[in-house]
Amino acid sequence: MRIDLNADLGEGFGVWRLGEDESLLEVITSANVACGFHAGDPPTMRRVCAAAVDRGVAIGAQVGYRDLYGFGRRDIGIDPADLAADVLYQLGALDACAQAAGGAVRYVKPHGALYNAAVDDRTKADAIASAVAAFDRSLPLLALPASAMEDAAHAAGLPFVAEAFADRAYLPNGRLLPRSEPGAVVDDPYDVVARAAAFALHHRVTTTDGSVLPVEPRSLCVHGDTPGAVYLAGEIRRTLVDAGVTLAPFTS
Amino acid sequence: MRIDLNADLGEGFGVWRLGEDESLLEVITSANVACGFHAGDPPTMRRVCAAAVDRGVAIGAQVGYRDLYGFGRRDIGIDPADLAADVLYQLGALDACAQAAGGAVRYVKPHGALYNAAVDDRTKADAIASAVAAFDRSLPLLALPASAMEDAAHAAGLPFVAEAFADRAYLPNGRLLPRSEPGAVVDDPYDVVARAAAFALHHRVTTTDGSVLPVEPRSLCVHGDTPGAVYLAGEIRRTLVDAGVTLAPFTS
Amino acid sequence: MRIDLNADLGEGFGVWRLGEDESLLEVITSANVACGFHAGDPPTMRRVCAAAVDRGVAIGAQVGYRDLYGFGRRDIGIDPADLAADVLYQLGALDACAQAAGGAVRYVKPHGALYNAAVDDRTKADAIASAVAAFDRSLPLLALPASAMEDAAHAAGLPFVAEAFADRAYLPNGRLLPRSEPGAVVDDPYDVVARAAAFALHHRVTTTDGSVLPVEPRSLCVHGDTPGAVYLAGEIRRTLVDAGVTLAPFTS
Amino acid sequence: MRIDLNADLGEGFGVWRLGEDESLLEVITSANVACGFHAGDPPTMRRVCAAAVDRGVAIGAQVGYRDLYGFGRRDIGIDPADLAADVLYQLGALDACAQAAGGAVRYVKPHGALYNAAVDDRTKADAIASAVAAFDRSLPLLALPASAMEDAAHAAGLPFVAEAFADRAYLPNGRLLPRSEPGAVVDDPYDVVARAAAFALHHRVTTTDGSVLPVEPRSLCVHGDTPGAVYLAGEIRRTLVDAGVTLAPFTS
Repeated sequence: MRIDLNADLGEGFGVWRLGEDESLLEVITSANVACGFHAGDPPTMRRVCAAAVDRGVAIGAQVGYRDLYGFGRRDIGIDPADLAADVLYQLGALDACAQAAGGAVRYVKPHGALYNAAVDDRTKADAIASAVAAFDRSLPLLALPASAMEDAAHAAGLPFVAEAFADRAYLPNGRLLPRSEPGAVVDDPYDVVARAAAFALHHRVTTTDGSVLPVEPRSLCVHGDTPGAVYLAGEIRRTLVDAGVTLAPFTS
Repeated sequence: MRIDLNADLGEGFGVWRLGEDESLLEVITSANVACGFHAGDPPTMRRVCAAAVDRGVAIGAQVGYRDLYGFGRRDIGIDPADLAADVLYQLGALDACAQAAGGAVRYVKPHGALYNAAVDDRTKADAIASAVAAFDRSLPLLALPASAMEDAAHAAGLPFVAEAFADRAYLPNGRLLPRSEPGAVVDDPYDVVARAAAFALHHRVTTTDGSVLPVEPRSLCVHGDTPGAVYLAGEIRRTLVDAGVTLAPFTS
Repeated sequence: MRIDLNADLGEGFGVWRLGEDESLLEVITSANVACGFHAGDPPTMRRVCAAAVDRGVAIGAQVGYRDLYGFGRRDIGIDPADLAADVLYQLGALDACAQAAGGAVRYVKPHGALYNAAVDDRTKADAIASAVAAFDRSLPLLALPASAMEDAAHAAGLPFVAEAFADRAYLPNGRLLPRSEPGAVVDDPYDVVARAAAFALHHRVTTTDGSVLPVEPRSLCVHGDTPGAVYLAGEIRRTLVDAGVTLAPFTS
Repeated sequence: MRIDLNADLGEGFGVWRLGEDESLLEVITSANVACGFHAGDPPTMRRVCAAAVDRGVAIGAQVGYRDLYGFGRRDIGIDPADLAADVLYQLGALDACAQAAGGAVRYVKPHGALYNAAVDDRTKADAIASAVAAFDRSLPLLALPASAMEDAAHAAGLPFVAEAFADRAYLPNGRLLPRSEPGAVVDDPYDVVARAAAFALHHRVTTTDGSVLPVEPRSLCVHGDTPGAVYLAGEIRRTLVDAGVTLAPFTS
């Protein structure tokens, strides 16, 4: 049994920092590196890519809306062709940083409001997939399964990799309970670790109505924006390793 | 005898347009495409790259300071490592657009205040050269000869290609007379065409003190920001062709 | 009988220009000046304000989403408190420029996607109105009548001024036919002038189903982004003046 | 005896935070609020202004270069008229936020590279002063004394208020030792507190060559970007209060 742990990295901008990149790199196996549109800047991208290559952590392009002020968390009514161009631009920019560090972009994961939009909005999902296909048809999309993103990946001939969220409540249909709803985020760390183990070992999650949903993610998304979050991610890692799960990039 | 004609393209941003890209592509052989930092945006970059590929015009990365408001024309006291990262980012972004159009970035030319700074400032020139070398050591730098940029290219193991400006006054030492000085720009179109011919056919230019300076450029920089400029560029092209000069990208 | 003619001004950014500001100032009586978020920059704002004061044209704050790349034409899922702060910021910034030119901001008109959103979205309309009220409760909102914006103005205790569009098709309910629909924009210049006269003289417009809708606008919105648009605006002005209509700012 | 303590506040952007604004407001008497060009955003500006008004802390406009990525710490070769417009814009924007909170902008202090440039560059200092004078001729400039900024303030008819830095080494001519030099920043907290007391009580500072320079600042600049910095600022406050110094805004 094996699984990947992915997390968002390089989400500062200029003097501003966000998240515990260095600590997180000791825990995860895939780094979703911000590409400068919702966060991230070229020196940070080079530094994070170099650190990821040093540790054998896979580099993914965390592409987002062009919205530093809103951190890519606000939906934008962007034209699909513009979105595709924005994604292609970010892919190329990060890949240059990754290649200069001896690595390469190995997968693509949309960020924030773009991720959420692409769960249900096939037009946006297709725009993202078309950009990835134009860049490198062998790059997988990492996203929520049974989504417009998965359909778009298949339609574009791209590999698709399903991820799961141990700290988010799931609806019976496999969608995440929106953050605006009470109970959307699982607060109890023991519960989060248990849900991570259920995903990795038993390929299932208990949904908001108590039903058990089969989910077989190849990657779990963890967070690192606070010291507590990094600690929790470490606990997930330790629990999985102790249970005999191999942690490795899904791209290897 | 052969020479290249290069010009800046794709220098709009969002709804704003600058220059006569379509007309200019009929005249030039190399397009310095803006990469989004001083001008340019991803959809424009894709469109310009596709148009250049269609016409057999070589694509170059016109890298600049991150300064849309100042159009990259204001010097910025940037840290050299940050500058190198900014250049690498722009190179990767444009190359993704060029590759998606069936082309590739074939050379690098700094823009505006960065170009001017890199004529004399070896630290900045080295930062640019290091980024190009990290991206692709076979990419030539296109710039003013006998400059810090030429030295930096040689030191980094990069090819260097000299360009000349038919509409700018030259000092006896080969530097351009700064734009702030009277007579810096040659206004008479006949004079500009004559100087272009002198560069291409006789490898020389008459400087501000009347002396004749030997210059053997492999490319001439022309402008296209007004209909008049495009017409003048076309006149230069016609004059050179009539004189038996082959116009072709220096990269071919 | 009197009416105001309003138009968008100062919508360039840095080196980029958009619209025929100087010509338009000879035609209109109220200038919606871009405030730097969707377009406009401080030197342009000062210049446009000075020119407006010189000609007795009223200065209005054309507030927009923070989206230079999209020119404020894309809807953004912004938090209402953030939107209110963004509007307040733009009001203060423009008023400083207007005061320095011997004028002042006299009214507020949202731009582009924000204008469209505030026609129906009461939350966004309230956010705009709350910012205007916090700045100066005597400033009128200029917008489409019978809209969420009108309701929000009344609720916030702000004056409301109705405008009309001579070049846009109206639905029977008084809303504009969306630009995505065929026939949304009235192309025939004679038709546009006739509709302007109908608004100003007869307080009515013929809607898409042929019915006649009573509309009594205190201002007509005209455009100036092309020489043709400025000419058309001038024709509207001449026609109204010939018909005995007094053209003056609604704020006077 | 009385003195003011000033510090930079509101220097985050979007999701990013910098500095301990809340804690610092308990220590200082004047808040230099970032205006959105080098840092700061409208919601943050409103929040910081409201908090300052609540505590009787004076609000100053911390105007900077338009350079979020460089945090205003990089010199930019900006045209003086553009700089004046940028400063005026920031003043108006912050004043709107301050007025909405029941306060007002009471003084102006340039930030970072703009502050440093305006110490010696009279053209930039004049541009800043002209903008302040155009906004409100009664607003004082807060800056290093015996500088181009002081001269520019006098020439523009603006009040000038001298500040001093307890944690920076002074050259015998009253300039600060550049940060690039060893010893530029005084690291020992006891030493910093002692220097603050020497400024406030004895109106003097010991310079890099051991000489004693008379300096009579009406304000001391303190820092709050780390918990340690806030603690140190609190120690300065306690020491001065214990020595019988009244701490109050210089504007009151």
